[in-house]
Amino acid sequence: MRGLRKIEPYIPGDQPKFSKMIKINTNENAYPPSPKVKEALLNFDASQLRLYSSLDNYNLTSALGKRLKVDSDWITTANGSDDILALAFQSFFNSSDPIIFPDLTYGFYSVWCELFNIPYLELPLNDQFEFDFDKIPEKIGGIVLANPNAPTGLYKPVDQIEQILKKYHDVVVIVDEAYIEFGGQSMLPLLSKYDNLYITRTFSKDAALAGLRVGYGIGNPKLTGVIQAIKNSYNPYAVDSISEALAIAATEDYEYYQKINGEIAKTRDWFIIELNKLGFNTLPSLTNFVLTTHPQQSAEAIFNHLKKHQVFVRFFPNKERISNYLRISIGTKKEMTTVIDLLKAFMAENNGGTK
Amino acid sequence: MRGLRKIEPYIPGDQPKFSKMIKINTNENAYPPSPKVKEALLNFDASQLRLYSSLDNYNLTSALGKRLKVDSDWITTANGSDDILALAFQSFFNSSDPIIFPDLTYGFYSVWCELFNIPYLELPLNDQFEFDFDKIPEKIGGIVLANPNAPTGLYKPVDQIEQILKKYHDVVVIVDEAYIEFGGQSMLPLLSKYDNLYITRTFSKDAALAGLRVGYGIGNPKLTGVIQAIKNSYNPYAVDSISEALAIAATEDYEYYQKINGEIAKTRDWFIIELNKLGFNTLPSLTNFVLTTHPQQSAEAIFNHLKKHQVFVRFFPNKERISNYLRISIGTKKEMTTVIDLLKAFMAENNGGTK
Repeated sequence: MRGLRKIEPYIPGDQPKFSKMIKINTNENAYPPSPKVKEALLNFDASQLRLYSSLDNYNLTSALGKRLKVDSDWITTANGSDDILALAFQSFFNSSDPIIFPDLTYGFYSVWCELFNIPYLELPLNDQFEFDFDKIPEKIGGIVLANPNAPTGLYKPVDQIEQILKKYHDVVVIVDEAYIEFGGQSMLPLLSKYDNLYITRTFSKDAALAGLRVGYGIGNPKLTGVIQAIKNSYNPYAVDSISEALAIAATEDYEYYQKINGEIAKTRDWFIIELNKLGFNTLPSLTNFVLTTHPQQSAEAIFNHLKKHQVFVRFFPNKERISNYLRISIGTKKEMTTVIDLLKAFMAENNGGTK
Repeated sequence: MRGLRKIEPYIPGDQPKFSKMIKINTNENAYPPSPKVKEALLNFDASQLRLYSSLDNYNLTSALGKRLKVDSDWITTANGSDDILALAFQSFFNSSDPIIFPDLTYGFYSVWCELFNIPYLELPLNDQFEFDFDKIPEKIGGIVLANPNAPTGLYKPVDQIEQILKKYHDVVVIVDEAYIEFGGQSMLPLLSKYDNLYITRTFSKDAALAGLRVGYGIGNPKLTGVIQAIKNSYNPYAVDSISEALAIAATEDYEYYQKINGEIAKTRDWFIIELNKLGFNTLPSLTNFVLTTHPQQSAEAIFNHLKKHQVFVRFFPNKERISNYLRISIGTKKEMTTVIDLLKAFMAENNGGTK
């Protein structure tokens, strides 16, 4: 057969399904979505599903605009963060110069570059897993930064990112703020100052709606014009009617989300301390996950020990530099207490070290 | 700014919102979705939305496989028919030979070719708006056929399409069956015989779930392997948890859909007779819409007359050959009776002709 795309199949992470498992491997929110979301679901009139969903999701962009204090015209909705990022890559990275992102970051950035034939350069993070902006070459096609970064959890202060917005003012800098609501400062206030800034967000993490598939991007009308033309050339009705209604309900109950995400941040900070008491080295995190390693124990052995007890965390055996690390999402305090207890038991059994 | 994609913004059709309108401009189903869909919505547990939706939508592909009598492994789900078609174009049309589709067909085919830089050739339909397969050149990159076609409504019998599957056996032939459940015969039974056949379908038309955004493609494991690799490289979780649950409910209530789509076919056949009594020339249709023209009256004047009475139909003023046609979706018998009454009144007022 002629014409088939030759592509290395991208293998997404496991989504195990066990009734009593502790699933802390894909950075889902520890808590259910707002009760207002449940209410919106019960009030949704199924008969209206015969009609197409809204093309511009105006009601959702209005609700978001109000909450984020940006003009709703600057917001583009999409089918999850992956969709808005894929659209942004297609919209903004059409040059022969490579775009730049760290070697350890969201794995999809390089996948989209391969898919869309975008030249790219993965800059190695330094020994502290920090991104040295000084290492960025002069001539580039754009920059993509997850802030906070995944899988490290590390956060870059706004003023540092502002320096690269200034220096690389003639290419687009995408700041992926999927995890920003767990403690970082958003780049949003800089949008009007830098016309090369594009911010992406998702309802999957802080809004506890991973199953709903809603993401969005924010940028000035020039960037938004391009991304909306691409969106309308790909799949215009990407956010369905129910998802829009529920995302609006979530947006309007920010109070609930401040509460649960505050809890998650508290649990995270406690969990890091407990991990480190057991000898782990854990990176500081402003997300709902931590990246951790133990100098005497193998990540694989810990991963398998947890899995045996139906606790699923993320392990990157083939990823250079973090092949002995585990990425652990922050569940409820009760779940994380179980995890610590299992790790204590593991340490007691393996006090000689397994590495 | 460097790197921005230069693209002609694609302008999707109007989605007017008036409480008493008759909206017959985007081929939505005249009836609400199955009562089982409503039930599934009420039973959906909102708290599970914190978790990612299923990666392979196994429950949905199983339900579809059972109903369509194909192996569920041959089915790939996506965010609407637009998404599965966009993925199929990226997956199957990677050659320097042009892909082929008619000049009058679903407008998105050429848009995706432009977006993905796929060479293409639009072959003019003949005077009866039929696709002459003999006009297809020898050396091509693939074929895309909507069957029945839109906006014409014309259906090609399976044995005729089989001829091009045979002749062009070394390239993929996509058959877009969005409207097949309104009276045509599906190509499904030929899937095992021709490894170059890929069929796409949607829940938007016959399943009355346009607002839900679920589409799917069906092809042998070789084609499915490529499309799933592309899907997993773009946006793996494209069908959200609620959409999957509701699409399953719809799939399992085929009886209801046979009933409503049978009603639509009856209303359509009656409507065509009534149109033609008023002097219209209407193309035969096996879809939930008709393409019609009046030899003495201008389509624009009729369009405006209907619009004045809050009846929205589709008019293509800039589309060569059909600029004096109207595409009218089939609503309920009551709605279509209103349309006929409005057209009678228009004819009485304009018996001299306005063209």
